[in-house]
Amino acid sequence: MDDLTGRVRAFAEERDWQQFHTPKNLAMALAGEVGELIAEFQWLTPEQSAAVMSDPDAGSRVRAEIGDVMIYLTRLADVLGIDLVEAALTKLEDSARRYPVDQARGSASKR
Amino acid sequence: MDDLTGRVRAFAEERDWQQFHTPKNLAMALAGEVGELIAEFQWLTPEQSAAVMSDPDAGSRVRAEIGDVMIYLTRLADVLGIDLVEAALTKLEDSARRYPVDQARGSASKR
Amino acid sequence: MDDLTGRVRAFAEERDWQQFHTPKNLAMALAGEVGELIAEFQWLTPEQSAAVMSDPDAGSRVRAEIGDVMIYLTRLADVLGIDLVEAALTKLEDSARRYPVDQARGSASKR
Amino acid sequence: MDDLTGRVRAFAEERDWQQFHTPKNLAMALAGEVGELIAEFQWLTPEQSAAVMSDPDAGSRVRAEIGDVMIYLTRLADVLGIDLVEAALTKLEDSARRYPVDQARGSASKR
Repeated sequence: MDDLTGRVRAFAEERDWQQFHTPKNLAMALAGEVGELIAEFQWLTPEQSAAVMSDPDAGSRVRAEIGDVMIYLTRLADVLGIDLVEAALTKLEDSARRYPVDQARGSASKR
Repeated sequence: MDDLTGRVRAFAEERDWQQFHTPKNLAMALAGEVGELIAEFQWLTPEQSAAVMSDPDAGSRVRAEIGDVMIYLTRLADVLGIDLVEAALTKLEDSARRYPVDQARGSASKR
Repeated sequence: MDDLTGRVRAFAEERDWQQFHTPKNLAMALAGEVGELIAEFQWLTPEQSAAVMSDPDAGSRVRAEIGDVMIYLTRLADVLGIDLVEAALTKLEDSARRYPVDQARGSASKR
Repeated sequence: MDDLTGRVRAFAEERDWQQFHTPKNLAMALAGEVGELIAEFQWLTPEQSAAVMSDPDAGSRVRAEIGDVMIYLTRLADVLGIDLVEAALTKLEDSARRYPVDQARGSASKR
């Protein structure tokens, strides 16, 4: 993960793209990539979506889109000085308190 | 990163939420969280967005939203059997070939 | 539709919000609202989503989110000098050429 | 506007695409199109975004993306039985109450 952050940063710096990489712009780029990812699933049934990786073409497109999303998320977090894994773990602990196992079990009320 | 994947998976399984976690649904949840993240930046100038972490309230909201985005991205990748860091590194190598340093330098033509 | 455009414009001007309403910012606001809309559907089965308006609470949330999306789309088009209905009709004609009825019938290959 | 709704519906029915047009799927398609629209603005400064229609290529891409967004929003509203303009006007009245002119003037606190 640290290696990825460093490589994404180097990629941007070598191309002198830091000037474009404000948090505002990177959040937009992230949203654009998530839009491409969601387009892969939009006409699939839930069942078809669960089997998407067994289709070589769709599977490789999904993998590439997920890679793109991760690149921009990594870059955005780096520019903001946020540790991505730590931010996720902190949020997961918050969610564990908000959705206690005994109350949340099997309910879609939130997720 | 592996630890995060495992914890997000355990979080879902303890609540019996695997039934909701199809790739289709998770892609939607990811898009919803990215929508909340982008809303933090929508009225900021690029300069204000670069200073967002120095505002305690906005900074903690941004950190929490980034945590949420990372949780769903991690979960989606896990459900699809995709290694998130590997997918990003592979895509970064593709981009390095598509945007050679000498041609891409300082240009926003793609990013 | 013209009436809506005028009212949304007046709403912004009365509050002196034109300064925030660049196309860039409005596209972000639109994406944020679409994120809220998609969140209403993320854990629903396709069948549940088709019946969402028969649930008073979910139905009124969906109606409100669709209203928000339409407000920002109308405002964005106005700021750009684009006629929303005309742009949609033009695009629909393009799509009719790209997806001839006899070839596209019943196929999800694009939509 | 009614004409557009009818034409979009006919377009879908002629191709037997109603089966794909659940609210869930259409919300995803809308999000995908908004992702393409936001990508047009992601590396532009606010000032460049305000001038985007004076660039013939970028301008025609933006117009086409706005058309796509409007098509899916129209279709989603039709499938849900929601009047798009009415939903926007109702929401605008709500917002007028929440952001009274004298308090909201020039402030970006919400928009």
